[in-house]
Amino acid sequence: MGQGCLRGVSSYSSPQVVVVRDGRLGTAYRALQLLVLLYFIGYVLVAQKGYQERETGPESSVITKVKGVTRSPSKVWDVGEYVAPPEGGSSFSILTRVEVSAAQAIGTCQEVSTGTQGVRTGRCVPGGSGSSCEVLAWCPLHGGSSSESLAEMAAQFTILIKNHIRFPRFGFSKANIREAESDYLKSCTFNATSSLYCPIFRLGFLAEQAGEDFPALAEKGGVIGVIISWDCDLDLPDTECNPRYSFRRLDPKGTSASPGYNYRFAKYYIWNGTCTRVLTKAYGIRVDVIVQGQAGKFSLIPTVITLATALTSVGLGSFLCDWVLLCCMDKEQQYSSRKFEQVPLG
Amino acid sequence: MGQGCLRGVSSYSSPQVVVVRDGRLGTAYRALQLLVLLYFIGYVLVAQKGYQERETGPESSVITKVKGVTRSPSKVWDVGEYVAPPEGGSSFSILTRVEVSAAQAIGTCQEVSTGTQGVRTGRCVPGGSGSSCEVLAWCPLHGGSSSESLAEMAAQFTILIKNHIRFPRFGFSKANIREAESDYLKSCTFNATSSLYCPIFRLGFLAEQAGEDFPALAEKGGVIGVIISWDCDLDLPDTECNPRYSFRRLDPKGTSASPGYNYRFAKYYIWNGTCTRVLTKAYGIRVDVIVQGQAGKFSLIPTVITLATALTSVGLGSFLCDWVLLCCMDKEQQYSSRKFEQVPLG
Amino acid sequence: MGQGCLRGVSSYSSPQVVVVRDGRLGTAYRALQLLVLLYFIGYVLVAQKGYQERETGPESSVITKVKGVTRSPSKVWDVGEYVAPPEGGSSFSILTRVEVSAAQAIGTCQEVSTGTQGVRTGRCVPGGSGSSCEVLAWCPLHGGSSSESLAEMAAQFTILIKNHIRFPRFGFSKANIREAESDYLKSCTFNATSSLYCPIFRLGFLAEQAGEDFPALAEKGGVIGVIISWDCDLDLPDTECNPRYSFRRLDPKGTSASPGYNYRFAKYYIWNGTCTRVLTKAYGIRVDVIVQGQAGKFSLIPTVITLATALTSVGLGSFLCDWVLLCCMDKEQQYSSRKFEQVPLG
Repeated sequence: MGQGCLRGVSSYSSPQVVVVRDGRLGTAYRALQLLVLLYFIGYVLVAQKGYQERETGPESSVITKVKGVTRSPSKVWDVGEYVAPPEGGSSFSILTRVEVSAAQAIGTCQEVSTGTQGVRTGRCVPGGSGSSCEVLAWCPLHGGSSSESLAEMAAQFTILIKNHIRFPRFGFSKANIREAESDYLKSCTFNATSSLYCPIFRLGFLAEQAGEDFPALAEKGGVIGVIISWDCDLDLPDTECNPRYSFRRLDPKGTSASPGYNYRFAKYYIWNGTCTRVLTKAYGIRVDVIVQGQAGKFSLIPTVITLATALTSVGLGSFLCDWVLLCCMDKEQQYSSRKFEQVPLG
Repeated sequence: MGQGCLRGVSSYSSPQVVVVRDGRLGTAYRALQLLVLLYFIGYVLVAQKGYQERETGPESSVITKVKGVTRSPSKVWDVGEYVAPPEGGSSFSILTRVEVSAAQAIGTCQEVSTGTQGVRTGRCVPGGSGSSCEVLAWCPLHGGSSSESLAEMAAQFTILIKNHIRFPRFGFSKANIREAESDYLKSCTFNATSSLYCPIFRLGFLAEQAGEDFPALAEKGGVIGVIISWDCDLDLPDTECNPRYSFRRLDPKGTSASPGYNYRFAKYYIWNGTCTRVLTKAYGIRVDVIVQGQAGKFSLIPTVITLATALTSVGLGSFLCDWVLLCCMDKEQQYSSRKFEQVPLG
Repeated sequence: MGQGCLRGVSSYSSPQVVVVRDGRLGTAYRALQLLVLLYFIGYVLVAQKGYQERETGPESSVITKVKGVTRSPSKVWDVGEYVAPPEGGSSFSILTRVEVSAAQAIGTCQEVSTGTQGVRTGRCVPGGSGSSCEVLAWCPLHGGSSSESLAEMAAQFTILIKNHIRFPRFGFSKANIREAESDYLKSCTFNATSSLYCPIFRLGFLAEQAGEDFPALAEKGGVIGVIISWDCDLDLPDTECNPRYSFRRLDPKGTSASPGYNYRFAKYYIWNGTCTRVLTKAYGIRVDVIVQGQAGKFSLIPTVITLATALTSVGLGSFLCDWVLLCCMDKEQQYSSRKFEQVPLG
């Protein structure tokens, strides 16, 4: 190559020159290109809607409202009693079993074995097992509490979930209830055959859909996720953009370490001039409403980018094909000699 | 070049051989490439900042604090009374109207028509309309409650929203209040002319900005979203990264099925030795603070990828052009004959 | 085409002709291509796992449970007293200092200077400074409240954070506690040497990890974020997908305008037949549990796209190189003349 100058052909973006040695290889080569192209056109562009501009994570508001009433041996439970917090947000718990302490006041009493519930005064009864120390605490301690269950009727409680979403990029908003169906909404309950626009769920239905046994769930407590998915193709009419509901147990079940869902809360009274509280250990079903969504609308940019990527991938196929020819075939010499040509200087 | 025809070789990518038959087509061909290139450079690279690495969804904390006091015929309402939950999180409601029940205790009373509020005992008064059955419930039932409105003064309540965001990828954090403006902050109120760093909003201002009529909103309740957007170009100085506020009604308004926003909560007392509750049906304005954001900073990788995509798209233009020439023009034969050349064997 | 061999021109991609004038430039040219290729293979494909399909933002549920007890001069504080809201969600506050008002009832009293806490009746004491007007309010006003601190013991409170995540696209779910370690979980505390599957945190540990001084934080209040990150490579065994914890102060500290975190809440009593409340101004540490995560799994599509982008970027390098040669070198004329060849008409 003495005086000549190497005329390199940029190796990707590929070899202009593919030596196709016989018809079969040529056919395979074209078939590969076609396959890649069909894949992109068929899967990425059509099935994945690669021609659309997308927005995920819509602005969302959730308002919930629980209805139902039941009784336990000592009490009537209506919404004001068993829903906490009461504000009707996207996460709330419905009590299904409570362990209610006796009225407690600050004082000293003997420690019980179920954990630290007070501050030791230092006075311990000699000969005791170590759990017989005196503590300053809300006495009497939680040990002697009574349990009441709401499980029998709680499965019939209904939950109305009002959800309104908005995709700001497209200025599109929609709710999961319809003005036209407001009468229907007063009496309907969500099930396999009901309208999608009847977002009123029986608590027992939620548990069942999440694959849980309601009495067991009510006993130990747990978290049920109501997942509302909005997958909207805004190139279609509005009526094609509908909510989809799925239900799933969200907390790790079956762990023996701190299983289920429970929490403690107190109510305070003045009793005979003393500040008194009643501490409740509440087991319940926490309902977390999770709203997901994506919307897509035709846009030139993603279309161009997808097409460009498709064609680049076709080029990638060509490149790989070429590389095979360049490296692995016996007539390498001939091919290489065509890739680098002499350019006479000056 | 007299009688000849310019055989342009597309400078990046794609068909090596484009037979440009006359000047007009050649010009159109180059113009298309230029257009695509300009589009990418102008829109994707510059306007969309395609040269930046981006992060969306910053870590965010929101602390809210409401101020204001008003009175209703029976009561003085300060923050401890009308904000729920009181913890100052990103979602809270401000009561604007309440229907307060009489003091209720568990007992039996006659059912009222406004829904199931107790458990039927089975004793029904014969001849009644079906709603005259006796129920075990918190009696007297909710029917005879009195309504009080805070709407007149509630529009003057102010809400301080402290927001602090952090983009972990870039180690960048910023708050929506400024140390230097802490005196200003004590007296300012957010409006069109105030500093962006005065996040103290009148409740009436929120309603107005969301396009709502305050008295109507206060009567039925509703959800107002305060959307804080941080769109930060970290290639610019910190002072260019500022919060932007927008306000929107989030719940579906105008639906006759369960319109607005309300919930029930109870307060408990010992009254003459009996556990008594006062149930309040609260209509209010729930304020949901939604924090969004994205940050971008120059990075080599997205720049290269964007440029590569841009040039690929130019190639796509060339390819389409070529395809037109290959398929649709009359002198197809000549063109094809140039695409496939003979290589003598051995 | 009998004995000949079809020389196919790859229909897509790149500059056919690069005039490499001497050895050094040729080497630089190849080195640039290699560099870009290595970069993509090494960084994008291997380090960034460009061959994986990804999902971010897993479905997540968080259940928290606080333990610990302490006393202040007037009171014993257990979980029912210092955690708010009590429901064990992902955001809750632990009170560290309280300013408790005297028992308040609605009536008239003299305004105090610390802000509007009542509605002026119009009766003002002449000669006063303007703050001596009578207000209708919950009296006596907040001024004369007593402060109690829990800071000494609060650092020892422990927080159990149960987190369960799910990546719906891959059907993969995992919790941050392990069935096999449930005994271990009863006694362990999270620190630098403990198992990752011991999500029990001392409050003092959180403050320390967030770089805060606990007594100062407890005095003024603040927000600590516990960020749980799940970065899961699902091509590896499940045991490689582990939570990672980080801790950060989330509220803007050091601002003199409304520093720290505090809120007011009331408890209600009937006292001598009058509705009475005790208003507490609570300073506390709000713990926000933030769950992030991404999962990746090998998939053909992103692999192809990444490879295609890689090769396009190599092509981009070639293009730039070519552009330099075309525009900036002295023998431009010769090069250009090779780019545009004459095609004889007809």
